[in-house]
Amino acid sequence: MRFSYLGPRGTFTHMALSQLSTNEEEHVPAIDVPAALRMVRSGETDFAVVPIENSVEGGVNATIDSLSNGSTLRIVAEMLVPITFVLAAKKDIPLDQVKRISTHPHAWAQCQNWIAENLTEASHVPATSTAGAAKAMADGALNFDAVLCNPLSAEQYGLTVIAEGVADNPDAVTRFICVGTEDTPLPEPTGSDKTTLQVQLPSDEAGALLTMLEQFATRGVNLSRIESRPVGDSLGRYQFSIDCEGHVADERVQAVLIGLHRTSPLVRFFGSYPSALQKPVKLRPGTANQDFASARGWVASLLN
Amino acid sequence: MRFSYLGPRGTFTHMALSQLSTNEEEHVPAIDVPAALRMVRSGETDFAVVPIENSVEGGVNATIDSLSNGSTLRIVAEMLVPITFVLAAKKDIPLDQVKRISTHPHAWAQCQNWIAENLTEASHVPATSTAGAAKAMADGALNFDAVLCNPLSAEQYGLTVIAEGVADNPDAVTRFICVGTEDTPLPEPTGSDKTTLQVQLPSDEAGALLTMLEQFATRGVNLSRIESRPVGDSLGRYQFSIDCEGHVADERVQAVLIGLHRTSPLVRFFGSYPSALQKPVKLRPGTANQDFASARGWVASLLN
Amino acid sequence: MRFSYLGPRGTFTHMALSQLSTNEEEHVPAIDVPAALRMVRSGETDFAVVPIENSVEGGVNATIDSLSNGSTLRIVAEMLVPITFVLAAKKDIPLDQVKRISTHPHAWAQCQNWIAENLTEASHVPATSTAGAAKAMADGALNFDAVLCNPLSAEQYGLTVIAEGVADNPDAVTRFICVGTEDTPLPEPTGSDKTTLQVQLPSDEAGALLTMLEQFATRGVNLSRIESRPVGDSLGRYQFSIDCEGHVADERVQAVLIGLHRTSPLVRFFGSYPSALQKPVKLRPGTANQDFASARGWVASLLN
Amino acid sequence: MRFSYLGPRGTFTHMALSQLSTNEEEHVPAIDVPAALRMVRSGETDFAVVPIENSVEGGVNATIDSLSNGSTLRIVAEMLVPITFVLAAKKDIPLDQVKRISTHPHAWAQCQNWIAENLTEASHVPATSTAGAAKAMADGALNFDAVLCNPLSAEQYGLTVIAEGVADNPDAVTRFICVGTEDTPLPEPTGSDKTTLQVQLPSDEAGALLTMLEQFATRGVNLSRIESRPVGDSLGRYQFSIDCEGHVADERVQAVLIGLHRTSPLVRFFGSYPSALQKPVKLRPGTANQDFASARGWVASLLN
Repeated sequence: MRFSYLGPRGTFTHMALSQLSTNEEEHVPAIDVPAALRMVRSGETDFAVVPIENSVEGGVNATIDSLSNGSTLRIVAEMLVPITFVLAAKKDIPLDQVKRISTHPHAWAQCQNWIAENLTEASHVPATSTAGAAKAMADGALNFDAVLCNPLSAEQYGLTVIAEGVADNPDAVTRFICVGTEDTPLPEPTGSDKTTLQVQLPSDEAGALLTMLEQFATRGVNLSRIESRPVGDSLGRYQFSIDCEGHVADERVQAVLIGLHRTSPLVRFFGSYPSALQKPVKLRPGTANQDFASARGWVASLLN
Repeated sequence: MRFSYLGPRGTFTHMALSQLSTNEEEHVPAIDVPAALRMVRSGETDFAVVPIENSVEGGVNATIDSLSNGSTLRIVAEMLVPITFVLAAKKDIPLDQVKRISTHPHAWAQCQNWIAENLTEASHVPATSTAGAAKAMADGALNFDAVLCNPLSAEQYGLTVIAEGVADNPDAVTRFICVGTEDTPLPEPTGSDKTTLQVQLPSDEAGALLTMLEQFATRGVNLSRIESRPVGDSLGRYQFSIDCEGHVADERVQAVLIGLHRTSPLVRFFGSYPSALQKPVKLRPGTANQDFASARGWVASLLN
Repeated sequence: MRFSYLGPRGTFTHMALSQLSTNEEEHVPAIDVPAALRMVRSGETDFAVVPIENSVEGGVNATIDSLSNGSTLRIVAEMLVPITFVLAAKKDIPLDQVKRISTHPHAWAQCQNWIAENLTEASHVPATSTAGAAKAMADGALNFDAVLCNPLSAEQYGLTVIAEGVADNPDAVTRFICVGTEDTPLPEPTGSDKTTLQVQLPSDEAGALLTMLEQFATRGVNLSRIESRPVGDSLGRYQFSIDCEGHVADERVQAVLIGLHRTSPLVRFFGSYPSALQKPVKLRPGTANQDFASARGWVASLLN
Repeated sequence: MRFSYLGPRGTFTHMALSQLSTNEEEHVPAIDVPAALRMVRSGETDFAVVPIENSVEGGVNATIDSLSNGSTLRIVAEMLVPITFVLAAKKDIPLDQVKRISTHPHAWAQCQNWIAENLTEASHVPATSTAGAAKAMADGALNFDAVLCNPLSAEQYGLTVIAEGVADNPDAVTRFICVGTEDTPLPEPTGSDKTTLQVQLPSDEAGALLTMLEQFATRGVNLSRIESRPVGDSLGRYQFSIDCEGHVADERVQAVLIGLHRTSPLVRFFGSYPSALQKPVKLRPGTANQDFASARGWVASLLN
């Protein structure tokens, strides 16, 4: 079993992967999210672990768009990782010597307030990941003075922590997904599942979004995430990346999918998988499997 | 084959029945709508012909409520009859001698303007049907001077027409239905069909009606008639009598029925039958049978 | 002050009127509902008292349609009257001698079950009101053996009660309204008010009804009654008679009225008046007058 | 007049700014979007020009979030800039010598296909802007071999273009906004305007989004952009950044704002300004200013 992940070693993504597999020999770092997913599509790895949503920064567009472009993949698990940052350097230097900080733009955004208060003059040197910045510093990069990274990668790359608790929101958490190819078997329903979809709208009218959401509401299916993404051909044409509560084995989710398939120019299914929080779904009246079954039975009886 | 109908001979209902059967031996007049339907329920007749909707007076509550109360019946056909009235009497009398007019309250309502202009002092003597009034006059009733009835029954009961074209709306039309027991076979779909339902709301909130109508809208099914009727236990609790476009053999109608069955405390199906006007239903995108079939096929493919 | 009402003396309507005025000299009986309202329109009386809704029989079409046709009237009060029936005759006769019963068709409908059980062979002789039947019997009519009327009119016309508690639903209640001309001052808001409207739909599509109901839902205004009535020009074109919670002095009701006026070909306002039950309206969040006022204040501030 | 913008000189943002002001002395480059907006908030500049939406990459989160956090700003104009990229280096080198490419992550994403086909082994060196990458190369940076930037900045920084037309979508366009402080006067309505809002949902239910969108639909106001952004306190709580058609001087837009203000925990107004495309808004029936005015007049007449 091989897992590609957004590397290098020590990233938050790597921490998420370690919830699934602690055997480092199975771990294959990728330079970015598209590369991690490409490895699954090409068969180089069996699964990819990538971030999909951050409680502060929102949806991870690189992941959402890489899922959308290319052969269909299947999400089989989600993992939550609390996000904590430290400021680290080659050696213990005073804060007023930190002028240039390398890190991933999301990390930079999540520490804005702390930086504004403590390092007023610091500027950002972007990196492809927080661990990548730590690794570059360990490798001797000279174009920055410190990095924002997670404590693990500071340790992993032998850096010195010069400030802790630098994240603006101490409760920040990032959600990661584990993705296989389309023929990966569906995880069994657990009663607390999520289903991830991509849905295009039939037209660019506001009413079209309303109509699409009614497909969910009519069957009592809640959304837990919705991201608009451009279709890409012109401004103002959107598709939506959606997580909804429930499993494709649930009749109410099947009814939503049937409704979307009928009325959307494009709907793609990226899998049903256990919710990381395992909070049981609260069913609205008339949306349990037996409600659908008895309703279908009644309609069938009318036809004879 | 025996047909009960809202009698006596010569009623508009009788005219509607004659579109189905011209053999008078098969016709069984009933004293009122509940009686006509009771005969079907008891097996005394095979079918009942009763009015359900008038273009001026609206839904015929006696029919709607008699369908709702008692064993389930099946509507197998609808017939349209243009409504025209004459003022008739035993012999040719001048209008100013007409002080009391007997007729059915609906007929009285539909000639209000003409009466207000031509017979300012006339008062209404109610009858159970327009033909019943004509028959009573022929039988020698003395408590009225003239009747409002259709031309046929004036002729049938040997009355003299003293004024024609007395209906306020010359285009008035009444819709009749032919009703059998629940085991009457469904008429085949024609592409221009109607389905008649009774639906109770889960609560007495305005939002409940909205939610119920969305079950139709989400599947692109139009309503052609909706009547609110009290549930009967208290003011403000309603159920609805509904005609919608389409046949229960149509997948979009089945999807509506499944949605209603799941979410309503009571839904009853009174049949699918050819629309009298045979105007083909204009399907909205994504609501044809093949759209449902291919959507279901897609969802099924996700489960394997 | 003069009140026309659906007469003759002793009707349920008369009982409703007595909640407003006990001075019999002010009471003017009318032969039917349209006549009672015509007297107000012509200035013959100041107000009319007429039934609008029965918990068993539903909306009173004669009232709804007479409000709709002709100059605009104003409802200023509503009254509830519990509905009880007795079977009464000239003298005490055994039930098996009762073959023909005169009463108003609504009363007949509300005693169906009792009649079916106790007077299997009895037939209906329609009357314009239950009190009218009682009066006719007192006046010596011979074409029926007994009447179904309320206890008051049995007493009033000197009849003998031969059976009590004959109504199928002992909790039946009828709602009556008191109606003046358009220039009657609006009753003050009480916190538990009703507003009565007539609304036509912009098209005959099912979606049009949904859109109209959303005008209410968006402002959190509940409906307590909705009746579809034919526009009258052809089958399938409807207008709606609606009671909603709230007073036209409430901003949320004004917002509904503005929305309806913008989008409906016809909307008429028949008044705001205290609800007979005086159950306080439960406001949804964001729909109180101060919510509207502060929202308007905010928008005004953006324009400067 | 001073304009901060996402610098350095030569960025696409700089091209957008040049549509408003060609006087270079008025231009103040900022190191990132938050910095450009901070200069306006602090009074250092009068306006900031920043990107808000890319037809390929979607909403620019840094801009959306920087508008949301901090004192309210006003958008007074929008500008469209077609997006074209070149691959440029210090001197003319063959493509197979290009191993590391520096550019902004959005630019990298928009040239993925071209790179995958022509530079299979190239890796990404992130930069804060495409012009920043070009400037760094001109300044002698050694950690990359080429940059992806716009033709203008290649010229501006004296680089050699080694490949043209490298963007995957030749029709890509980015939308920029010009932002002042809250007291900047509103641009006059032109008949083709946009209004930009931030709206939080009252709860985290799917139905809450539906309800919010109905505030727009009920008044016939179309959305041209909707982005979900995390509120930031936990996963699954969203706010929305919205562009809708129309000007706050339009009554229908005011009605939407009133509805949102009543029902959302937070709604912020970021301005009404002429749409760059100047395509006239197609009004739905009943949503013109005069429809609102006459409806309000009617309601006012009911209150007297």
